Amino acid sequence: MPGTPPTRFVYLGPEGTFAEQALRLVPAAERGSRSPARSVPEALDAVRIGEADAALVPLENSIGGAVGVTFDELADGEPLVITREVVLPVEFVLAARAGTELDAIGTVAAHPQASTQCRGWLRDRLPDAVVVDKLSNSAAAQAAADGEQDAAICARVAAARHRLPVLADKIADHGDAVTRFVLVSRPGPPPPPTGDDLTSLAVFIAHDRVGALLAVLTELAVRGVNLTRIGSRPTGEALGRYAFFLDCTGHVADIRLGEALQGLRRICADVRFLGSYPRHRGAAGVNERPVPAPAGLADADYADAAAWLARVRTGEQT
Amino acid sequence: MPGTPPTRFVYLGPEGTFAEQALRLVPAAERGSRSPARSVPEALDAVRIGEADAALVPLENSIGGAVGVTFDELADGEPLVITREVVLPVEFVLAARAGTELDAIGTVAAHPQASTQCRGWLRDRLPDAVVVDKLSNSAAAQAAADGEQDAAICARVAAARHRLPVLADKIADHGDAVTRFVLVSRPGPPPPPTGDDLTSLAVFIAHDRVGALLAVLTELAVRGVNLTRIGSRPTGEALGRYAFFLDCTGHVADIRLGEALQGLRRICADVRFLGSYPRHRGAAGVNERPVPAPAGLADADYADAAAWLARVRTGEQT
Amino acid sequence: MPGTPPTRFVYLGPEGTFAEQALRLVPAAERGSRSPARSVPEALDAVRIGEADAALVPLENSIGGAVGVTFDELADGEPLVITREVVLPVEFVLAARAGTELDAIGTVAAHPQASTQCRGWLRDRLPDAVVVDKLSNSAAAQAAADGEQDAAICARVAAARHRLPVLADKIADHGDAVTRFVLVSRPGPPPPPTGDDLTSLAVFIAHDRVGALLAVLTELAVRGVNLTRIGSRPTGEALGRYAFFLDCTGHVADIRLGEALQGLRRICADVRFLGSYPRHRGAAGVNERPVPAPAGLADADYADAAAWLARVRTGEQT
Amino acid sequence: MPGTPPTRFVYLGPEGTFAEQALRLVPAAERGSRSPARSVPEALDAVRIGEADAALVPLENSIGGAVGVTFDELADGEPLVITREVVLPVEFVLAARAGTELDAIGTVAAHPQASTQCRGWLRDRLPDAVVVDKLSNSAAAQAAADGEQDAAICARVAAARHRLPVLADKIADHGDAVTRFVLVSRPGPPPPPTGDDLTSLAVFIAHDRVGALLAVLTELAVRGVNLTRIGSRPTGEALGRYAFFLDCTGHVADIRLGEALQGLRRICADVRFLGSYPRHRGAAGVNERPVPAPAGLADADYADAAAWLARVRTGEQT
Repeated sequence: MPGTPPTRFVYLGPEGTFAEQALRLVPAAERGSRSPARSVPEALDAVRIGEADAALVPLENSIGGAVGVTFDELADGEPLVITREVVLPVEFVLAARAGTELDAIGTVAAHPQASTQCRGWLRDRLPDAVVVDKLSNSAAAQAAADGEQDAAICARVAAARHRLPVLADKIADHGDAVTRFVLVSRPGPPPPPTGDDLTSLAVFIAHDRVGALLAVLTELAVRGVNLTRIGSRPTGEALGRYAFFLDCTGHVADIRLGEALQGLRRICADVRFLGSYPRHRGAAGVNERPVPAPAGLADADYADAAAWLARVRTGEQT
Repeated sequence: MPGTPPTRFVYLGPEGTFAEQALRLVPAAERGSRSPARSVPEALDAVRIGEADAALVPLENSIGGAVGVTFDELADGEPLVITREVVLPVEFVLAARAGTELDAIGTVAAHPQASTQCRGWLRDRLPDAVVVDKLSNSAAAQAAADGEQDAAICARVAAARHRLPVLADKIADHGDAVTRFVLVSRPGPPPPPTGDDLTSLAVFIAHDRVGALLAVLTELAVRGVNLTRIGSRPTGEALGRYAFFLDCTGHVADIRLGEALQGLRRICADVRFLGSYPRHRGAAGVNERPVPAPAGLADADYADAAAWLARVRTGEQT
Repeated sequence: MPGTPPTRFVYLGPEGTFAEQALRLVPAAERGSRSPARSVPEALDAVRIGEADAALVPLENSIGGAVGVTFDELADGEPLVITREVVLPVEFVLAARAGTELDAIGTVAAHPQASTQCRGWLRDRLPDAVVVDKLSNSAAAQAAADGEQDAAICARVAAARHRLPVLADKIADHGDAVTRFVLVSRPGPPPPPTGDDLTSLAVFIAHDRVGALLAVLTELAVRGVNLTRIGSRPTGEALGRYAFFLDCTGHVADIRLGEALQGLRRICADVRFLGSYPRHRGAAGVNERPVPAPAGLADADYADAAAWLARVRTGEQT
Repeated sequence: MPGTPPTRFVYLGPEGTFAEQALRLVPAAERGSRSPARSVPEALDAVRIGEADAALVPLENSIGGAVGVTFDELADGEPLVITREVVLPVEFVLAARAGTELDAIGTVAAHPQASTQCRGWLRDRLPDAVVVDKLSNSAAAQAAADGEQDAAICARVAAARHRLPVLADKIADHGDAVTRFVLVSRPGPPPPPTGDDLTSLAVFIAHDRVGALLAVLTELAVRGVNLTRIGSRPTGEALGRYAFFLDCTGHVADIRLGEALQGLRRICADVRFLGSYPRHRGAAGVNERPVPAPAGLADADYADAAAWLARVRTGEQT
């Protein structure tokens, strides 16, 4: 079926970074085109104006936290929806030109966040090496390939792109660090439920934050909807107005999540649906396993209660 | 339309008590038959076995509180539903045979609860009179009519029945005392919504009472359903199992109340629907005025949220 | 110690009713004087004006429900406090003059509530007997003793008082029916905590009943205080003002209950403390067993948290 | 008092960035030493091991969101506490060597986040200019001073440091963007309450996130404690364990906040106190104005309730 699914992908560049690596995990991306964007807004705007069909951008990572610009872009402006998440282990390697020995490394090119995440390893194994900051993991690999520095801390994909052998693998201090990327498209029917889905929402509330947030959580809890993530950001639009970004278990097509969404719509200043999509299986760190529905809140309980109410309304039962 | 609505009424007797007076406020009762029952269980059993079409029984009164036997009968055994409430001011009169002067009254026949409610008046106006207990207001009027005592404290209807002139009106110390009666039938379609209805429920919960009761109230509060009455009773069936009797604003046909009922059905050990019926207008004391729906919980908000969810599910909106 | 504890007891009369039977279970009552009162208000007023030291009155029974007049008297007027509860099985007997055979009984004297509670037994064993209503269980026994009727349904204590042999024991349809009485005194230091106490409160809230009641229950739940009873009554004082009667587990001297009480005091229109007193052990039906404190809400957790906060405030810990 | 308060300050470098600018707003910093650190962990470790007395690090900014590494460092390892917050408007300027005209600018040096925040201005005013990425705002200013590029987007402080005239002021698309920095020290007595303070906490909860988070918020709400910020992060320590970072209104010395903290301590897996400190007055965007205590939750209400409870416990009042 030419033209579908999306064939023009854009991702947060430059080439050789984790975003490109994450995109390669999306099967359709192998058959489509893949272009780097200079920034998250640039990537999303390409989708908004139709120059691309889908954008792969980072949402959060387990070391640096939420990627604010992505959340802001999703909450503001022309609507977009998430259709897939990709959770990628952030594995740093030390790469150097062929023939380089570990003992001979005097300088290491690295993005500052990368060298921070590997500082324990550097202290133990290269205590005398000088770290030279670079603008991206890809730029660090480039510098090692060009001979500017003796080695680079970078992603495996960047080492491969610059044909640099890997001298040491998984050198980050926290071995289970991950980055969570999302694939974003123009609005359309969500992917079908799989039984293990997430739904992302931007929820805007005003004024009293404890009370309003309690009300939001109560709408979810009453329907047995669980949260896997919550974060808040002030909105520039009006003083005292806040956006909460929620990742809920379940799919917008589910009865229980649908009822909870209606509840949020009623009580919040605004709700923006950011997509229902399959949970990335096997991802550690960011995602927890699905929590079973509490007693009385399984789908069968919803069906039973609906049938009972129908009979009560006609007088067949009490 | 002969045969409908119910034509065979039974009420908590004997004749001449407040229950009969309350039944006379039900328009259809004027065209039907009206029989006294010796007790609430007898009245309700008459409906259950088809000997009567509807029973008028007391549910609570503002001095004596809940009528436990009525609640127990509604919660147990063959289901029955409330189709109407009648809130009757409990106005006591002092009645005596024609020609009796207040000064000449030495003995007063009265049901103990009636004399208790009028003790301030008796102390002020008949300080030397001896009160003689009777089994009912009607029996007190009978005793005065028979000349056993000089006067009777009774309901106006009992005075009229025994052709006793009223010497003093509204002699109860609390002038706004009321009794709330309900008309009970075999299950069937509830009367249509009027916009100012009540729905009565028996809700059974187990174990932790604060947590479980909080959960019940949260199901109501989240949908903007208000309570006008709550009472609890232990159930004999199993240790640690409780029945709560709730009167909620709204009709089972309402979206919001329907959603709340489904929620209760899911989380409670059991829920028994006891009827949706028009609130008795103009009743003081027991009933409060309808509380407007909180922000975001009006019918229009429900309709808006449902329409929004439908569009979100098809991808038309976010 | 002459004069203490209270020696002048008053109880809801007449003699030979369950209230007298309940009072005999209070050890101090054996050494004191015991006088019947005509009504609950009369009994409580005797304590208020100093004519008696303590009054034993019914609070609720498992068939008839709450005794409204007792709650109203405790919530209004000059304050009184509960110092003890007595939960008495309501066991009805059939008593008749010596020599009477069951087969020969044609008429049975009974208080209407008593005959209602025994109607299953009457239908099975005395299907042809005529029940004659009496004003109290004691009056029924008197009537049998006088030969007005062939037998009486009454309390064991009434049969004994009128020297009537018991023909049949425990004839109530619900064998586990109980009445809960309370011993009421003028305010003073509560009895010391026993580790299994109840605290009774009258809580007045205004306006929105679901929200306000949710707030009340949340104050309790947050401190791990459990409810063993909740009931509500409209108050005559002002329209839309409600009184809730709560029985909570714990003693006013407990940290957790003290914190919860302060919370109620802050958010409610009014709170009246009605006493802390030992739970009546071994009582079935009305009382549940003490629920252990939820995780984190035991006394040790309170002590740990207070010690931690003290260290945080001085900067010793974070 | 020479030597106190802290005289050795460290801040997130390099020199000429917003962190240095924020530190200059701390009066004591003018009298002390000020050293840049290469990273947030380096800055905080300097305080932990005693090489510095206080560290100024970014906590969140209104465009990029939470600075994950700062939160992680505060939640893990040797405890530190926040003693002050500084909220700094993030105002970008366009700076160039003396004599440079806007029309003549062909290349602009900028940190990628800075150029992203100014992309509207660049599109309008310098549509043909080529943006060259730099590692920091300070490096961008350096590049313009060195003549590598024609101009730089940087902080005003960086322009001043490199003696670059400002060609255009406040060029960010969102004029009210701010960064919130915190001054962090080793644990000690918190600064005294000012009446408008914040308290920061790291709260660790396990398993069911909606229920547990609801419980956390309820502990705050019941005591009238408001949230000004909430964010969550997974913790690497154990699967399914989460850290919430809360900023609450009030000071640890306040009765109400103390009671809420004890509640959190009791119900959470762990709570780490991160400091009580004066709210930065006049800051826009991130901070809202203090919300007055809800009805019944003001200090006077706490005092009244405590006094009432004391009287109830001795029997003086009910």
